[in-house]
Amino acid sequence: MCVTLLVQKYGGTSVGDSERIAAVADHVARTRRGGKDVVVVVSAMGKTTDDLIHLADQVSKRQTPREMDMLLSAGERISMSLLCMALADLGVEAVSFTGSQAGIITDTAHMKAKILDIKAERLCKAISEGKVPVVAGFQGVSTAKDVTTLGRGGSDTTAVALAAALGASVCEIYTDVSGVFTADPRVVPNAKKLSAISFEEMLELASSGGRVLALRSVEFARNYNVPLHVRSSFTWEPGTWVKEEDETMEQAVVSAISHEAQEVKITLTKVPDKPGVAAQIFRAIADRGINVDMIVQNISIDGHTDISFTAPRQDMETALEVTEKVAQQIGAEAVYGDAEIGRVSLVGAGMKSHPGVTATVFETLAREGINIEMISTSAIRISCVVRESQLEAAVVALHSAFEL
Amino acid sequence: MCVTLLVQKYGGTSVGDSERIAAVADHVARTRRGGKDVVVVVSAMGKTTDDLIHLADQVSKRQTPREMDMLLSAGERISMSLLCMALADLGVEAVSFTGSQAGIITDTAHMKAKILDIKAERLCKAISEGKVPVVAGFQGVSTAKDVTTLGRGGSDTTAVALAAALGASVCEIYTDVSGVFTADPRVVPNAKKLSAISFEEMLELASSGGRVLALRSVEFARNYNVPLHVRSSFTWEPGTWVKEEDETMEQAVVSAISHEAQEVKITLTKVPDKPGVAAQIFRAIADRGINVDMIVQNISIDGHTDISFTAPRQDMETALEVTEKVAQQIGAEAVYGDAEIGRVSLVGAGMKSHPGVTATVFETLAREGINIEMISTSAIRISCVVRESQLEAAVVALHSAFEL
Repeated sequence: MCVTLLVQKYGGTSVGDSERIAAVADHVARTRRGGKDVVVVVSAMGKTTDDLIHLADQVSKRQTPREMDMLLSAGERISMSLLCMALADLGVEAVSFTGSQAGIITDTAHMKAKILDIKAERLCKAISEGKVPVVAGFQGVSTAKDVTTLGRGGSDTTAVALAAALGASVCEIYTDVSGVFTADPRVVPNAKKLSAISFEEMLELASSGGRVLALRSVEFARNYNVPLHVRSSFTWEPGTWVKEEDETMEQAVVSAISHEAQEVKITLTKVPDKPGVAAQIFRAIADRGINVDMIVQNISIDGHTDISFTAPRQDMETALEVTEKVAQQIGAEAVYGDAEIGRVSLVGAGMKSHPGVTATVFETLAREGINIEMISTSAIRISCVVRESQLEAAVVALHSAFEL
Repeated sequence: MCVTLLVQKYGGTSVGDSERIAAVADHVARTRRGGKDVVVVVSAMGKTTDDLIHLADQVSKRQTPREMDMLLSAGERISMSLLCMALADLGVEAVSFTGSQAGIITDTAHMKAKILDIKAERLCKAISEGKVPVVAGFQGVSTAKDVTTLGRGGSDTTAVALAAALGASVCEIYTDVSGVFTADPRVVPNAKKLSAISFEEMLELASSGGRVLALRSVEFARNYNVPLHVRSSFTWEPGTWVKEEDETMEQAVVSAISHEAQEVKITLTKVPDKPGVAAQIFRAIADRGINVDMIVQNISIDGHTDISFTAPRQDMETALEVTEKVAQQIGAEAVYGDAEIGRVSLVGAGMKSHPGVTATVFETLAREGINIEMISTSAIRISCVVRESQLEAAVVALHSAFEL
């Protein structure tokens, strides 16, 4: 490719009103005039999607997934056509493409469709004619020719998938924060913006409470090696690069701390400790579509053990119902649900070669009088469950202890 | 076809909010349970289209027609998916179809596209599976695979075109009035609802200020002989049938009176009376896309004549500009624009055989002291231009004179 191609994705707040759309159009026009080819991916304006869901709640208790997708896909049509008109005013020829027109082919799982293929002929043609394609994020067309949406973080996924299919040199994700921080700046005011982070670290952050990027889109970017640049559409300053780890990247022991308050801990007491029991519990949970995060099993005493696990708080009712049913079947004593928990996670590629991190975490939290209720680790992450009331104190203490 | 097929079209006010959508769903469900197959065509909810146009005005001065179509087509996606969900709640399986999915193929004239073909396979399949297709009105897909809209009255046209393509027994047009009246009830409080009217009469009414049905959709219905039933989605009472004239239909001398206040009269004085002059004027006007309605030319005195014509008031500025340019070229004396006019029209299939109608019109208006400034007639219509301030008095007097 002789000309650099960028994919720029703008989220809902970035195109939240007509002034924001004008600002985005101005930035796209500058990029284009800088001699670069640009493909733009947009989300629906601000609260449009919430408003549409509210309308659906009003008319129906049975929200047919196919019709929900038809409904929600209206949002991006509005933002993308407005952006194209704003670009035309600036003398930039832009053409909007629905998911279907952009050739984003998905499976038939409405409201959580997966991209199967991208037939980018129309986009390539528009680019070769010097036009700026503006593509609807979050949506595609199924193999049954129905409109589908990609679920949470769908617009990021659209952008990364297009960047991969078109061989873009970078996928810029414009949002309302200026990058990925060492911790949530609302909790830790002196949190610092990271200039770069590896795909693996970003994956751990995204799955442990970091809300800047959706997990799926980071997985997609890693699998296709698409460098991401997360940055602000309000300040336009350079943000955080998310890319393959390389020697030039500083290997901090701990890169960032994330936290998650929307979880619940469920405990089964006096579970008979024999093979197959854990499988029975977690198969039943999985069958209801609930993602279990951490699992802890105590040592066995008198042939019995306690098992605790965490799950998203919104699934608490279902998880308790399923667990109680299984508890009866396997002869466990009781089931307890605890929604007052929080999880703090430390992520850093350098952890692999620094075995002392866990000890520092324990010492730091002990010094603050914070009890650790559950622990799980990966090669580059340590997560601890603590009381929700102590969660922010834990984040602040750890951020300071690791001098972030 | 063994089962009766109805096409039901619901306008913007009929699906204006969630309660209206529930009422429409209820009516569709009753029709379906009555053993009939139903295809529903919906407009965008209430003021959605106006809101979208307002957004476009905010972001852009150059409203690219292709992008305007993309923008406006979002409106029907919302109303149709909501209606499908409301139907699902009532146990009626409904499937929404965009213009493209419904196979409505148009030319590439954005914002005023014409339907070229209807490929109804997906609709036929859904009907044969016992489902109720809910189709987006007003939109189609062009031969270049772009989203198009059909312009004013587009949803009525969609409904009639589908009724023709599917061989429906009737196309029901649900709106916020209960049918076609002998005059506008806001002007003539004792105006009566007509139970039936011929296509030809409806065409004359639609083109002379009657706002119940768009002219195009009536032309389409006449050409394909699709009976229309115009009725209210608020009272659900029987409305007015629009169909081929037959012997059983009462041939009133005058069926209805319509009026139009949004016009302008433009007059050229002392136009040299030689061949080709009128052609030069009206070619120039037509080239700017302005529809001229009535044209009057006085008798020639000393080789000069005066020419007056009427046009939509919104085109006044352009029409004056063009006319003044032509006036200079052809050596006319002056050009005057008059926006203070109104037009009253009497329509009736029985006029053909009753030559005295014109005389009664003149006598009635003279008795009221109303001066007639221009006249035009067809076989079943008489239109008079009067002062706008006297328009409503003219309508009332004529409605009474013809005992409607």
